[in-house]
Amino acid sequence: MHIDEDTKRAQINRLRRIEGQVRGLQRLIESENDCVDVLTQVSATTKALESFAIELVSQHLQTCMREASENGGDPQAKAQEISAAIARLVRS
Amino acid sequence: MHIDEDTKRAQINRLRRIEGQVRGLQRLIESENDCVDVLTQVSATTKALESFAIELVSQHLQTCMREASENGGDPQAKAQEISAAIARLVRS
Amino acid sequence: MHIDEDTKRAQINRLRRIEGQVRGLQRLIESENDCVDVLTQVSATTKALESFAIELVSQHLQTCMREASENGGDPQAKAQEISAAIARLVRS
Amino acid sequence: MHIDEDTKRAQINRLRRIEGQVRGLQRLIESENDCVDVLTQVSATTKALESFAIELVSQHLQTCMREASENGGDPQAKAQEISAAIARLVRS
Repeated sequence: MHIDEDTKRAQINRLRRIEGQVRGLQRLIESENDCVDVLTQVSATTKALESFAIELVSQHLQTCMREASENGGDPQAKAQEISAAIARLVRS
Repeated sequence: MHIDEDTKRAQINRLRRIEGQVRGLQRLIESENDCVDVLTQVSATTKALESFAIELVSQHLQTCMREASENGGDPQAKAQEISAAIARLVRS
Repeated sequence: MHIDEDTKRAQINRLRRIEGQVRGLQRLIESENDCVDVLTQVSATTKALESFAIELVSQHLQTCMREASENGGDPQAKAQEISAAIARLVRS
Repeated sequence: MHIDEDTKRAQINRLRRIEGQVRGLQRLIESENDCVDVLTQVSATTKALESFAIELVSQHLQTCMREASENGGDPQAKAQEISAAIARLVRS
C-alpha cells in the first residue's frame, strides 16, 4: 500500500496518542485507582483503536476502488481480502 | 442492489433462524431461566447477526469492486458509503 | 432467578420489538433494498440486543449483590459465573 | 480498590505488552506494510485490551461480592457503578 507522507504522519501521531493512553492505564493501576475508572479508560482506548481501524479501512477501500476503476486487476481477490480484515475487526 | 434469487433465499433463511433465536429468548424469560443462560443466548444471537452483516459486506464489496472495474463510475462515493456502514457495524 | 412480573413483561416486550426488527430485515432483503440500508438496520438490531443484555446484567448484578449482602452464600462462585457471561458479551 | 502486589505487577506487565503492540503498529505504518496486515494487528491489539478489561471486571466483581457478603454496605450502589462500566465496555 502506498500512502502519502501526510497521511502516514497523521496515522503515526494517532497511534502515539493511543500508546500514551495505554501508558496512562499503567499509571492508573500503579496508583491503585478505582477499578471502575480504569475500566472507563480501557473503553476509551478500545474506542480510539477502533476509530483508527475504521479510518484505515476507509482509506484502503478508496484506494482499492480507485485502482479497480482505473486498472481493472483482480477486484474479487481484493474484495475478499478486505472482507476478511473487516470480519476480524467486527468480531474483535 | 441486485442480488440473485439463491442468495436472497439464503439470506432470508438466515434471518428466519435469527428470528427464531429471538423468540427462543422470549421463552427463556417467560420460563424464568437463569439470567446467565439468557445472557449466553443473547451473545449467540448477537454473533449470528454480526456474521450475517459480515456476509452482506463481503457480497456488497465484491459487487462494488466488480462494477468499479467494469464501468468506472464514481468509486470514491461508493467507497465512502460502504465505509460509513462498516463504521456503524464495528461500533455496534 | 426470580424476577417480578412487571420486569418480565417489559423484557418480553423488548424482545418482541427486536423480533420485529429482524422481520423488518427480511422485508428489506425481500424488496432488494440497498445493501448499505440493510447494514444500517442490522447495526441498529445488534445495538438493541446489546442494550437488552446490558439491562439483564445490571438487574442480575443488583440481585446477586443484594443476596450476597443478606445471606452470604458463595459470592465467589456467583462472581465467576457472571464474569464468564460478561466475557461472552464483550467478545460478541 | 486494594489489589495485592502480584496482581498489580501482572496487570502492568500485560499493559506493557499491549503498549508494545501499539508501537509495533507504528512500525508497520512507518514501513508501509499492507493495510490488511495493519488491520489484522489492530484487531489483535483491540482483543488484548478487551481481555484485560474482562479480567479487571472479573477481579472487581469478586472483590465486591466478597465485601457485600462480609460487610453488607450498599450493594445496590456498587452494582449500578459496575453495570455502567460494563455497559461502556460492551458498547466500545
